Amino acid sequence: MADHERWQELGQQLRVDSVRAAAAAGSGHPTSSMSAADLMAVLLDKYLRYDFEHPKSPVNDHLVFSKGHASPLVYSLFKAAGAITDEELLTFRKFGSRLEGHPTPIVPWIDVATGSLGQGLPIAVGIALAGKELDRLPYRVWALCGDSEMAEGSMWEAFEHAAHSKLDNLTAIIDVNRLGQRGETMHGWDLDSYVRRAQANDWHAIAIDGHDVAAIDAAYAEALSVTGRPTVIVARTLKGKGVHAVEDKGGMHGKALDDPEAAIAELGGERSLRVEVAVREPAEPHAFEPGPLELPRYEVGDEVATRKAYGDALAAVGTADGQVVALDGEVSNSTYSEIFQEAHPDRFFEMFIAEQQMVAAAVGLQVRGWKPFASTFAAFLTRAYDFTRMAAVSRANIALSGSHAGVSIGEDGPSQMALEDLAMMRAVGGSTVLYPCDGNQTARLVAAMSQLEGISYIRTTRAATPVVYGPDEEFPVGGSRVLRSSEDDEVTIVGVGITVVEGLAAADTLASEGIAARVLDCYSVKPIDADALREAAAATGALVTVEDHWPEGGLGEAVLAALAELEERPPVIVLGVGSMPGSGKPAELLAAAGIDRDSIADAARQLVRTRALG
Amino acid sequence: MADHERWQELGQQLRVDSVRAAAAAGSGHPTSSMSAADLMAVLLDKYLRYDFEHPKSPVNDHLVFSKGHASPLVYSLFKAAGAITDEELLTFRKFGSRLEGHPTPIVPWIDVATGSLGQGLPIAVGIALAGKELDRLPYRVWALCGDSEMAEGSMWEAFEHAAHSKLDNLTAIIDVNRLGQRGETMHGWDLDSYVRRAQANDWHAIAIDGHDVAAIDAAYAEALSVTGRPTVIVARTLKGKGVHAVEDKGGMHGKALDDPEAAIAELGGERSLRVEVAVREPAEPHAFEPGPLELPRYEVGDEVATRKAYGDALAAVGTADGQVVALDGEVSNSTYSEIFQEAHPDRFFEMFIAEQQMVAAAVGLQVRGWKPFASTFAAFLTRAYDFTRMAAVSRANIALSGSHAGVSIGEDGPSQMALEDLAMMRAVGGSTVLYPCDGNQTARLVAAMSQLEGISYIRTTRAATPVVYGPDEEFPVGGSRVLRSSEDDEVTIVGVGITVVEGLAAADTLASEGIAARVLDCYSVKPIDADALREAAAATGALVTVEDHWPEGGLGEAVLAALAELEERPPVIVLGVGSMPGSGKPAELLAAAGIDRDSIADAARQLVRTRALG
Repeated sequence: MADHERWQELGQQLRVDSVRAAAAAGSGHPTSSMSAADLMAVLLDKYLRYDFEHPKSPVNDHLVFSKGHASPLVYSLFKAAGAITDEELLTFRKFGSRLEGHPTPIVPWIDVATGSLGQGLPIAVGIALAGKELDRLPYRVWALCGDSEMAEGSMWEAFEHAAHSKLDNLTAIIDVNRLGQRGETMHGWDLDSYVRRAQANDWHAIAIDGHDVAAIDAAYAEALSVTGRPTVIVARTLKGKGVHAVEDKGGMHGKALDDPEAAIAELGGERSLRVEVAVREPAEPHAFEPGPLELPRYEVGDEVATRKAYGDALAAVGTADGQVVALDGEVSNSTYSEIFQEAHPDRFFEMFIAEQQMVAAAVGLQVRGWKPFASTFAAFLTRAYDFTRMAAVSRANIALSGSHAGVSIGEDGPSQMALEDLAMMRAVGGSTVLYPCDGNQTARLVAAMSQLEGISYIRTTRAATPVVYGPDEEFPVGGSRVLRSSEDDEVTIVGVGITVVEGLAAADTLASEGIAARVLDCYSVKPIDADALREAAAATGALVTVEDHWPEGGLGEAVLAALAELEERPPVIVLGVGSMPGSGKPAELLAAAGIDRDSIADAARQLVRTRALG
Repeated sequence: MADHERWQELGQQLRVDSVRAAAAAGSGHPTSSMSAADLMAVLLDKYLRYDFEHPKSPVNDHLVFSKGHASPLVYSLFKAAGAITDEELLTFRKFGSRLEGHPTPIVPWIDVATGSLGQGLPIAVGIALAGKELDRLPYRVWALCGDSEMAEGSMWEAFEHAAHSKLDNLTAIIDVNRLGQRGETMHGWDLDSYVRRAQANDWHAIAIDGHDVAAIDAAYAEALSVTGRPTVIVARTLKGKGVHAVEDKGGMHGKALDDPEAAIAELGGERSLRVEVAVREPAEPHAFEPGPLELPRYEVGDEVATRKAYGDALAAVGTADGQVVALDGEVSNSTYSEIFQEAHPDRFFEMFIAEQQMVAAAVGLQVRGWKPFASTFAAFLTRAYDFTRMAAVSRANIALSGSHAGVSIGEDGPSQMALEDLAMMRAVGGSTVLYPCDGNQTARLVAAMSQLEGISYIRTTRAATPVVYGPDEEFPVGGSRVLRSSEDDEVTIVGVGITVVEGLAAADTLASEGIAARVLDCYSVKPIDADALREAAAATGALVTVEDHWPEGGLGEAVLAALAELEERPPVIVLGVGSMPGSGKPAELLAAAGIDRDSIADAARQLVRTRALG
């Protein structure tokens, strides 16, 4: 069969299989798959380099469906490549099937989860960065994008960054089928509106008819030939192409076809073309030589900001582990990731003020086994929450660092104060949430993060705080530390980060009044040290929790959850930031928020007094 | 004094006052203010139309500092306009001063809080939309943007939307001072990189020297003359302009000057120019006629999806209140905001798949007193978390609606399932979080939301669920409803939304086994009905909470927090989604997540059994 004819046939097969999969499921997005079928047929047959037997092969290309709802097309491609059977294809969207409604890396040939639009291309930028800057291998990254998702600003962050990094190993394909979920996109079939914007971002752009296999072939060939910049293929397509009942019609988004049998007949019936996908010559990725792990050591009694300790420790971890890389959102002199940059310039990525692209790039880098640490102000990680949520669906291993947490930052005011990040990060599937109070603890936790699976988060403090732990102490994830205790303890103060300092001061005050207070440093907010909390509850009978965060969803509620099923449940006063803060000195703001040493002492007194009366 | 000379002098005054304010504070961003001083001097003196005595005047222009860190310049402008005294200027960043480190609307001449970069321009788009489409008044919107923040994708969402909506009442000014916080931006002084991208987005673009007052004057005049599209002025400037020690130098971001006295001398000393800012002719905004409130009514026993009831109710509330407007992220046929669109096309804004711009536009619309309801899938509101957080700092009144919550959506899989939105929205300052279980309750809560202050959020369910309440029942915010109870209740099942249905079914099962269970519908997650929970705790002695959400930060922890300080604290089992879900039928997924009727009944039995043994 001649190439063109085979591609046309393969395109029809992909359409038929997309229709069949959706029909078997009773739902799904067949029409969004049909528009891109020809584009993917030519790619699979001639341009993709992928060893389906060895999905982790370092030289494999990466194909990211940024328009993740076209999952029937993804799975139909896998069938055509012989990776899955027709029988499995028809398990689409069924409980227990790995062929979920949107792609996830449960399937070995899928790198990342998509389905929240606007994420696949930014992640592809991360994979392409890995290829060029870290692995230094010739694999290519292909990202199939929808036209609707071009409305997401994150796509334009990706355009800007890909050009800035000269990612000529990246090809984006925009499937301009004109129709979004509920109607036409802003630009319809105005291909030039995409071309213009891509070119203004220094991309090479090619506009084609996305159903003309010769034009598609020529466009891919041209993309391969372009150096020094990424290429976008802007393809005019028909949603539901090939089936009159749905072709270019509104109201057909995200639905199985009403009459799949007729549609399959109209498409020329079932086919069983099998594509032998080409593979690349084997090659090994570049590796950065590891050295010894020499974490920073701070003297007890000195003062150091935990954000500074983060930077020191990250540089040290980077020396010990060549897979560790760092990204920052143009605030590396505040988060102190600049220390890593100085030590390991080849493994540092400046992502400018584009937090979505930063987290997406981290997800892309870990696809290839790199261990990314991405840092910015904790408040600005809220910008990337959708990406973080989806990173968990991607089963990604990434470390996030948020500095300048809480009102303790002082004069900059609430726009710069993270007051919701503990809640946000706790509510990420399988996440780890850490919040150290001193430099040595920070260093140990940063080292631990490089070994963690899933999404891990460390919250750091702007101000210098006293070093309370020696440099050889250990801080396992899921642990806690008792910083003060006696047999007479009547109450436990549970602090974290900056409030550990306040809690210790409150304990001093209480001691001077004859009230013995235990101080528990709950540095591992998730998983939380339930055993230590239960022990403290049993021993002291009452708890005050205190955090530089809104009262909702943070330390206090994590403590309550850990104690909820106990037979004897102690009373707990949860102290958090009670009203919108303003500017001021850290001590003024801690007091105004009701989370300073005096507020803690007041709460502890109240608990002790209530029990005495009870 | 001739215009040019006065503008130059005024520019120097703004620089001097920015230096003085930062010096008094010991921190702040004087150099970022100095680069834009000439741009703002000409605007204030000649182009801005603003009645400082009547900041709420409907004909006032709106000046948004998207680069909010240039707050010294904002406050120096207010001083030049006679709105604040020099004495107040020097309270900058002090505890209790309204002149916070970044602008907030505590100051009457500031519309919205900025300081998280990339937000001011998208919000300005919302204000400009209000001017053109709702108020129908000739006011203009001016947005001063930094060049660093152009890396945020949200800025390009704003560019695309402003052009799509032909906002010729909007002028963006990009202060291209080349230097970000830690070094040069991606594009440095390549003004054309901004011009090209703006033009590709159908904006009129003008590149100028941002310190040439004649060029600035000409650019503003040109912007006023352009019709049918917005204008951007791309201005080449020097960070720290006018003071040799800091001018165009790295490492000077966000710091008071080392030697402010010398700097002031170099700038020609203090000045006390006073600008009489011009005002517009009075005019009244357009108003949409109100009608009667006729909320939808559903029959008990029928089935309706709460997302459908949201759409029905929103249309009804829109009829009754002409200030209510709606926005959607290209999923109005799923969120059912399309029902509002059909009823009130003039008050509906299609924001396409750009959730950041959607929430920003809502914030902009409420600046002018409109009551925006913005809807999309709850999962995709995570994309706009930074905007939502900042909306609270803006003291904005906006209503958000998230549909398709939780695993109960079924086959689409985890990318589309909101499992963190309750935690996310609870941790917004002063927020209200509602989650109805049936159609009539939804309708009442939507009506209530139109009257709420702050950020309110309603979570809706994809599937049709039974109508359990009559159409005349009332559901105050902060309340709850007991759906089943008896004197023999041994346990309380606290459900919300979809799990109320499951809780009722579990209670049936338990009743058949001789266990009486109270069922509490906790539709107001924040504020939560602490009294009802305490009563249930006292009456039944044990609680099961159950939610279609990760266990962290949602209903269960809100319940625990409400009970934390009680003298007698019941044991509570918190049921939430325990592991990453996949695709499947809703009932399969609820069971797999451990939040279905059987899981609830198991937990209730466990509590009752433990107590019997205890």
